[in-house]
Amino acid sequence: MRTKISALLASQQTDIEVVAKGWVRTKRGNKNVTFIALNDGSTINNIQIVAESANFDEELLKKITTGASLCVRGTLVASPSSGQPVEILAQQIELYGAADPEKYPLQKKGHTLEFLREIAHLRPRTNTFGAVFRIRHAMAFAIHKFFNDKGFYYWHSPIVTASDCEGAGAMFSVTTFDISNPPRTEQGRVDYAEDFFAQHTNLTVSGQLEGEMGATALGEIYTFGPTFRAENSNTPRHLAEFWMIEPEMAFYDIDDNMDLAEEFLKYLINYALNNCDEDLAFLEKMYDNDLRERLRFCVADHFCRITYTEAIDILKASGKKFEFPVSWGLDMQSEHERYLVEEHFKKPIMVTGYPKEIKSFYMKLNDDGKTVRGMDVLFPKIGEIIGGSEREADYDTLVERMVEVGVPVEEMSWYLDSRRFGTVPHSGFGLGFERLILFVTGMSNIRDVIPFPRTPGNAAF
Amino acid sequence: MRTKISALLASQQTDIEVVAKGWVRTKRGNKNVTFIALNDGSTINNIQIVAESANFDEELLKKITTGASLCVRGTLVASPSSGQPVEILAQQIELYGAADPEKYPLQKKGHTLEFLREIAHLRPRTNTFGAVFRIRHAMAFAIHKFFNDKGFYYWHSPIVTASDCEGAGAMFSVTTFDISNPPRTEQGRVDYAEDFFAQHTNLTVSGQLEGEMGATALGEIYTFGPTFRAENSNTPRHLAEFWMIEPEMAFYDIDDNMDLAEEFLKYLINYALNNCDEDLAFLEKMYDNDLRERLRFCVADHFCRITYTEAIDILKASGKKFEFPVSWGLDMQSEHERYLVEEHFKKPIMVTGYPKEIKSFYMKLNDDGKTVRGMDVLFPKIGEIIGGSEREADYDTLVERMVEVGVPVEEMSWYLDSRRFGTVPHSGFGLGFERLILFVTGMSNIRDVIPFPRTPGNAAF
Repeated sequence: MRTKISALLASQQTDIEVVAKGWVRTKRGNKNVTFIALNDGSTINNIQIVAESANFDEELLKKITTGASLCVRGTLVASPSSGQPVEILAQQIELYGAADPEKYPLQKKGHTLEFLREIAHLRPRTNTFGAVFRIRHAMAFAIHKFFNDKGFYYWHSPIVTASDCEGAGAMFSVTTFDISNPPRTEQGRVDYAEDFFAQHTNLTVSGQLEGEMGATALGEIYTFGPTFRAENSNTPRHLAEFWMIEPEMAFYDIDDNMDLAEEFLKYLINYALNNCDEDLAFLEKMYDNDLRERLRFCVADHFCRITYTEAIDILKASGKKFEFPVSWGLDMQSEHERYLVEEHFKKPIMVTGYPKEIKSFYMKLNDDGKTVRGMDVLFPKIGEIIGGSEREADYDTLVERMVEVGVPVEEMSWYLDSRRFGTVPHSGFGLGFERLILFVTGMSNIRDVIPFPRTPGNAAF
Repeated sequence: MRTKISALLASQQTDIEVVAKGWVRTKRGNKNVTFIALNDGSTINNIQIVAESANFDEELLKKITTGASLCVRGTLVASPSSGQPVEILAQQIELYGAADPEKYPLQKKGHTLEFLREIAHLRPRTNTFGAVFRIRHAMAFAIHKFFNDKGFYYWHSPIVTASDCEGAGAMFSVTTFDISNPPRTEQGRVDYAEDFFAQHTNLTVSGQLEGEMGATALGEIYTFGPTFRAENSNTPRHLAEFWMIEPEMAFYDIDDNMDLAEEFLKYLINYALNNCDEDLAFLEKMYDNDLRERLRFCVADHFCRITYTEAIDILKASGKKFEFPVSWGLDMQSEHERYLVEEHFKKPIMVTGYPKEIKSFYMKLNDDGKTVRGMDVLFPKIGEIIGGSEREADYDTLVERMVEVGVPVEEMSWYLDSRRFGTVPHSGFGLGFERLILFVTGMSNIRDVIPFPRTPGNAAF
């Protein structure tokens, strides 16, 4: 019966017979004894296997190289070496699979993250990506647990959609046509009535609008699914395919929304600090010396809440030279957001009351007629981590805004039904999952926090 | 401060001031008093609001019709009526939004499920769909909890993929081309090098192959994401977009795999029985008289484990007339599976050792050279609920099978790397999430267990 290496390393008992299975990270030793560092993915730490040459076939020991997979039977004993509580004195070693050192790309020496992206199918076998993906799992689970404990329902918004009205970005088309020769109408246009869904369809850019349909029936819901943007952005912060969390809550106003966003982010960060410490410590050492300090910074204090107008005033009065202009009516750039968080307030902030022109049509209009109840949560290092709003619940006001910004009212009739029938005050926000993982892991390229990144020109594996 | 109706109905305290918010399900009464059944989605049960006519504006009471949304302040009191522990004596009622009875489609009278599919954006406001979607949430959470508690990692396989080798079914193309005029090569072919991903891409049919890359590094992983099939199947059991759970485990042989599948399904069914009883009771009464009995049937006993060869022998010896032929080498049909489960064994069964010709290339070949270590879990009413296998871990045998069935070895080189370098015995299975929800809710059409079903000709909302 195999025991995971995480459990072996935490074992209170020694001098017991155990079975460990895993992959060789390193091998060293001399002609009398071989030391194998074995890892099985359950922890960033390896267990040391001690194999005395006299007990093993020389050919077998030769095949035990970095990347090879083993089943080891032996005795778990207290380790004489420092830095590890226990090790295994091997009695029996079975080689599951060798890894030819001439061909296996993950040899001992360090690899650049760029190189590892080329072998995204193998990089989870490295310390870095093991740590990142264990943390990614922990954050996903914490998200589900947070919402479940609060009585929210997980709501699956559709991925393929005929609705393209959210205006969140460029979209991918989904079709079963032979693109080299699609059916055409008599007028020569592509005849989408003949396509699988009998109309032109896209991959979703956001589950929010469908999420609102859930919230205005079940009360509190959240989505957690893939979303897509077809922008040709080759940056360390953009993916064409990424995962989003979008809670949507009936009976929440903008203040309730801010309360929830703050509680949510603090819960996630505390969960990481409490459950992923070894992986965080590794990433801190390798990539980001301030990592855990920054995480603690975000949970230490109340998030400061200011209006957009106050933010602009502070930026103007700062005397700071910014690359992008600061003026009421313009969107804040990352440099402005970071100045507010890192230099001025020295804590995370939440900004509300944005000019309606720079925000989406569905945000609730304030009484001033100029600003909307949008809210952004700004964090150190990354700027905006959450964007949300109280939603416009008034039918007439919403239709007016849709007409103003050119959202087709007729096509969105289903969405307007939520305001036509039993409309309620409600709010919601969106958290880009990979942005969260970037923040929590301290990695700097978003391609390094998702198993198989999709970017312009790349859909490998 | 609002209290959810689920909490109000469970309150140990009465004669306290409370605030309830929700949607009117029904209104009745006389000229002295109005009784309002209010629901907020937190439970299938409504809370009764008692409004004495003397205390309220007549116009307000008139606007309180089915579907309207209210904020009610009042006193929570023990109810004199049977069938409800408490009710609210209203002191103040605010109408958030009316629902014109001439236009609101969800009036008191029952609606067919077919009609409700046409208004999928409003149907979560009904008892049936409230129950279904609460159960859907509970099952999703139970899945994450089951795997997290066992040390599995949630693994996001890609949705857009250039790999189309799994052969699980027809695929949707994903493109940013203007389909009416895609760029072409000099030879006149569509020039996919110019497409967003610089190649032809599809929506995934399964995350398994990428999941294996996670398992052979992190040990035990599971996927839970949307998958897509472009088959033109207009049946109560097929969706073009559905969610799948695919665990994949290093160091598991076929027996470990069966142990996990059995434990997993029993955990989920017990979770539903223990956490969703009111919703299950409602669905049982309305749609499926044997629902909870069938659920209990599945957790009562060990699943019976037989080989495909034994199954065929039993079917042949049954003397039963089947519509489809029974013969070694042919796939079993639903009628065969249901006979084995419901009539012969009278418990869920797991079948292994299928002829290799009817199973996928990646299943481990048995020593007989004829059968593979596939496994199907068969349930009452629905037949196959889980399909899985021990995976072929031997590089040469796997390549041989790929060549036999025409899977392009070159394109799959990344997948083969998991067998080339440190290969390990490993296993996995797939559970269609909506199939599970169909089974647990007792609903009979798969379009009724996902918020916005995608089927041929339908991508509305």
